Amino acid sequence: SKKLRIAVLAGDGIGKEVMPEGIRVLEAAAKRFDLPLEMQHFDWAHCDYFAAHGQMMPDDWKAQLQGFDAILFGAVGWPATVPDHVSLWGSLLKFRREFDQYINLRPVRLFDGVPCPLAGRKPGDIDYYVVRENTEGEYTALGGIMFEGTDREMVLQEAVFTRKGADRLLKFAFDLAQSRSKKHVTLATKSNGIAISMPWWDKCAEAMAQNYPDVVLDKQHIDILTARFVLQPGRFDVVAATNLFGDILSDLGPATTGTIGLAPSANLNPERNFPSLFEPVHGSAPDIYGQNIANPIAMIWSVALMLDFLGNGQGAWRSAHDAIVDAISQTILSGPRTPDLGGQAKTPDVGKAIAQVL
Amino acid sequence: SKKLRIAVLAGDGIGKEVMPEGIRVLEAAAKRFDLPLEMQHFDWAHCDYFAAHGQMMPDDWKAQLQGFDAILFGAVGWPATVPDHVSLWGSLLKFRREFDQYINLRPVRLFDGVPCPLAGRKPGDIDYYVVRENTEGEYTALGGIMFEGTDREMVLQEAVFTRKGADRLLKFAFDLAQSRSKKHVTLATKSNGIAISMPWWDKCAEAMAQNYPDVVLDKQHIDILTARFVLQPGRFDVVAATNLFGDILSDLGPATTGTIGLAPSANLNPERNFPSLFEPVHGSAPDIYGQNIANPIAMIWSVALMLDFLGNGQGAWRSAHDAIVDAISQTILSGPRTPDLGGQAKTPDVGKAIAQVL
Ligand SMILES: CC(C)[C@H](C(=O)O)[C@@H](O)C(=O)O
Ligand SMILES: CC(C)[C@H](C(=O)O)[C@@H](O)C(=O)O
Repeated sequence: SKKLRIAVLAGDGIGKEVMPEGIRVLEAAAKRFDLPLEMQHFDWAHCDYFAAHGQMMPDDWKAQLQGFDAILFGAVGWPATVPDHVSLWGSLLKFRREFDQYINLRPVRLFDGVPCPLAGRKPGDIDYYVVRENTEGEYTALGGIMFEGTDREMVLQEAVFTRKGADRLLKFAFDLAQSRSKKHVTLATKSNGIAISMPWWDKCAEAMAQNYPDVVLDKQHIDILTARFVLQPGRFDVVAATNLFGDILSDLGPATTGTIGLAPSANLNPERNFPSLFEPVHGSAPDIYGQNIANPIAMIWSVALMLDFLGNGQGAWRSAHDAIVDAISQTILSGPRTPDLGGQAKTPDVGKAIAQVL
Repeated sequence: SKKLRIAVLAGDGIGKEVMPEGIRVLEAAAKRFDLPLEMQHFDWAHCDYFAAHGQMMPDDWKAQLQGFDAILFGAVGWPATVPDHVSLWGSLLKFRREFDQYINLRPVRLFDGVPCPLAGRKPGDIDYYVVRENTEGEYTALGGIMFEGTDREMVLQEAVFTRKGADRLLKFAFDLAQSRSKKHVTLATKSNGIAISMPWWDKCAEAMAQNYPDVVLDKQHIDILTARFVLQPGRFDVVAATNLFGDILSDLGPATTGTIGLAPSANLNPERNFPSLFEPVHGSAPDIYGQNIANPIAMIWSVALMLDFLGNGQGAWRSAHDAIVDAISQTILSGPRTPDLGGQAKTPDVGKAIAQVL
């Protein structure tokens, strides 16, 4: 059968340390489940490349990656040499936009064996998805500064939402909720303060809910929603959010499960017109880079999400996804563990252990 | 000496239940510390008024309130009859803007006796201020919908920041930090995603920091910042934030201390050109209104903030503030407690107990 093609970009900092472990586990899974895959490495989309070429990626990056089925991405950013907004807008944010990866899917789950920062919560109590709009909204470079340098200096910042963008995000969220037992969608809103876009989001969500009579829609203002992630995490199932709100919720959610070092993410173009991208939520972590103590689990879990997506959640691909997540659970419980989980293991120790369980 | 004048507006829902307790404690404090105060009640800025008059407040609301030194506010909102954005933009948000209450000051503190939702945290571990810009930023009705009803439908939403607005907020935050032992300001930013306004905020904060060589400035992206409120609350001292980010952080922070039912807020016009406004962070809570079980502590703590502000943090006024906060601490520990804190007391029981301690 035709091989699915994976582009591998490790990026900066600990991206370079966790990626080999992601690949180790990917190879183990491909072998065990007989998945037809091939990988190709690319040595750009990192700040060393920027230092040499004055840009993050070659001009033909799109042509080079277009034919791939998925992109496995480590982390980008090395602020000591390249400002974050330059490195990010020149790579990751380009992928998300130009490959129309309009869904950013981020599971939030409490694992047995990870000390929970919330008192009295146990595995099963925290288990939901953040479905984040990933291409538009609050992340724009539109607007400007006026009267600069005078005491009338002011800034306009635009956010841009499209009906198409809201509807496809909401459809994905409602479909996901329908496939789960709770059948519950929370919309992150702020219609009592942000007076044009947020009441409009409320209406889009209410209209979409009409198509899903068996799914409950609960609109919550982003302020109280963050409070409830801490106080009542059990009430969430699928949380649909704009780019900014989803960014916030998908760091906060994992934090309530003990560490953002475990959190994976899938940047999806569900129609498969472009490659989708899979990456850990954590960044390049310059502060710990070089010691090989980064936790590779977020990278490995991202590999699992990739396989699930590549196989449409079916057959051997779904089994591979489930087996990796099980191996992660088991390894968290039994060790080895990196320092962020209280252990003394190195990055490869954890990768090897998970590959071993597989 | 000249009496300071307080305007009292109870508003909707539990605002009407907690306000009498705020006043009870205010009267007890005024008596004990011999504070020259007088109060006047206003029966508008609530949704019943809207039902009768088609607007939240009389046309001359500004003239009626202008001469007061402070406004004590309960809560506004009764969505069953008036949509939240109508009631809020017609009252609370008007006060904040038209009385130029540009600082929204919100203390976050863990009290002894309140079960903390964060595992292993004790009083003293969580003790910081959110200093929120309160008049501009992301809360606007500027922008619009284009191509409505077609498949090209799109929305523009503007955020508006002024240098004056940013600078006065930052100055307040740095002054506050300088008066505290940690001398630490965290700026909530998102300069890696929101590409015009947030890099500009970063620069404003860096420039302001130059004037405060003894205060440390730490810029953190809002996503990881919310994670750290949960994982490392001890690292915060004064958190400066835009209107939206401050709104989020000042619900999340109190949630990590157990309940947003305790959180007070001060909407300040530090120059005293207009009355400042003091209100609990919680809203009108239609779900529990009518049972008289709302916790009045946020209202009472707001009274304490008001006295501190009225007296410039000095003398008998400061003593009154401290005595009220002490009485709150003591009552939380000894009871009576309302149901949100696991007790069975009614709203007035708590108000009476605190007044009694005073
Ligand atoms: C690095 C940054 C631009 C990015 C984002 O805000 O989207 C990151 O925080 C994420 O969540 O993937
Ligand atoms: C009710 C709402 C408009 C308000 C705000 O967002 O400012 C509230 O959440 C607050 O924090 O005071």
